[in-house]
Amino acid sequence: MLVDHSTGDDAGVFRLDETTALVQTVDFFTPVVDDPRDFGRIAAANALSDVYAMGGRPLTALSIAAFPERDFPVEWAAEIVAGGAEKLREADCALLGGHSVRDAEIKFGYAVTGLVDPARLLTNAGARPGERVVLTKPLGTGVVATALKAGAAPASVVAEATRTMATLNRAASERALAHAVQAATDVTGFGLLGHAARLARESRVTLEIDSGSLPVLPGALELAERFQAGGLHANRREFDPLVDYRGRPSEALRALLFDPQTSGGLFLLVPEAETEALLAELPGATLVGRALPPGPKPLIVRA
Amino acid sequence: MLVDHSTGDDAGVFRLDETTALVQTVDFFTPVVDDPRDFGRIAAANALSDVYAMGGRPLTALSIAAFPERDFPVEWAAEIVAGGAEKLREADCALLGGHSVRDAEIKFGYAVTGLVDPARLLTNAGARPGERVVLTKPLGTGVVATALKAGAAPASVVAEATRTMATLNRAASERALAHAVQAATDVTGFGLLGHAARLARESRVTLEIDSGSLPVLPGALELAERFQAGGLHANRREFDPLVDYRGRPSEALRALLFDPQTSGGLFLLVPEAETEALLAELPGATLVGRALPPGPKPLIVRA
Repeated sequence: MLVDHSTGDDAGVFRLDETTALVQTVDFFTPVVDDPRDFGRIAAANALSDVYAMGGRPLTALSIAAFPERDFPVEWAAEIVAGGAEKLREADCALLGGHSVRDAEIKFGYAVTGLVDPARLLTNAGARPGERVVLTKPLGTGVVATALKAGAAPASVVAEATRTMATLNRAASERALAHAVQAATDVTGFGLLGHAARLARESRVTLEIDSGSLPVLPGALELAERFQAGGLHANRREFDPLVDYRGRPSEALRALLFDPQTSGGLFLLVPEAETEALLAELPGATLVGRALPPGPKPLIVRA
Repeated sequence: MLVDHSTGDDAGVFRLDETTALVQTVDFFTPVVDDPRDFGRIAAANALSDVYAMGGRPLTALSIAAFPERDFPVEWAAEIVAGGAEKLREADCALLGGHSVRDAEIKFGYAVTGLVDPARLLTNAGARPGERVVLTKPLGTGVVATALKAGAAPASVVAEATRTMATLNRAASERALAHAVQAATDVTGFGLLGHAARLARESRVTLEIDSGSLPVLPGALELAERFQAGGLHANRREFDPLVDYRGRPSEALRALLFDPQTSGGLFLLVPEAETEALLAELPGATLVGRALPPGPKPLIVRA
């Protein structure tokens, strides 16, 4: 075993031989959007992302489904499964099987297995001072999903959040490997600063984030003060003490720093000389900060 | 992909190279016994079994857990996880990670990945007329679990059912491979005759089962008429029409033919010349029938 949960990495890694390791992850959750096909797409993109975040190539998936017995049209199950299958195909990942149970609450996701060259693993531990921080998707999916549940999210806002959540992190991972990236994570339940703090700790660097440059979903800033999931508060309690603020970001932006993301983007540490080329090849990716030698706190946020 | 769900096999198989394939499966379920550590042991033995049933060697596991927020002592979660870990160690299988959700109902299990030589796969399709049928665990776990839920299972009966459910099918699988077995399945939700029917169909043989020789858990025959799970009735409706009965098994024994098993034994098709040696090496394994050329029905049951 090369990587397990103790390093806070996104997936487990098990060496098969000198040049091949399995990278494995499991994730499933309750619907974050109303449309069942979109939910299936997002569940697949989210589960695959942990493999991409480690620099792996997804190979096989097993589905994990909990569907209610009542008040649940059978077409919804078919749509969820079809949305997931569409994304697995896009990832060239074979569906080998799955397990389904009856449950009061819909849940769906996958266990995903990928292959990775152990010498080219992306981990939380590989960042070096001087590298640039690049984020490949906008923040705010948790805020938008919370507003949607309250019936307060405009359709266009939900549509754009859905589009980004259903987008594979495949290109981001492939381009990162092509540009000598060694440290990466995906931004999920712990929010931007939670995942950044783990990476900073494992790499023994301080990460400086320029909050003004952070990509944010359209509409998310407007919703951020009123629609905060329980996980956002928990993240803020845990990770805010790790931040040295330089200036005062708006309250809305500060909340988004801790917003739990579903199928969030990759958070990449990029050698300075490669940054421009990487950004040119990855539409939607944004330069948001840099790595510094370790300081008193693992994170600096500039307003 | 070498095997997917279309053949009714126990796990999916994905070829990595000429001599190596991944064999993968996922299974999780609600508690079948009251003791949390026993439940964890059984959940692990059950998930690992699908890999053993294909002739694979378990390599890695990801846990899948749903634990209630209320009325659920945290020690129970620790006990369930510890029971599972104990069985994974016994299987030399590394726990790489997992995913846990809050849910009203306890559920636990694993996604398991094993390795198998594609030339030595055990499948539903490999049986040949003349081979002997060997069953490696006694029937009746579904009946005992149903009686337990009704408060009607004697403690000694539950203890023995628990012991067999927590037993790994590792030795059964290894001995089967050592004795030239090519066709196997594990007996789980479809009951003995449901799994036998699938194997008979895929192999194009008729399987003759001598009902009087079937191993049965102590106490299970006494409970079988009163404590039948819903799955038993569904299995009987589906598979009874596939059976040519020669003689009249007792109603209790007939019910057990369709009893859904949790972590059931392996159902092995063994070359005649190897049968005696295999039985000698596998305490608890029993000769229960033989394969015949295909007849009008896929199954014959003798009383």
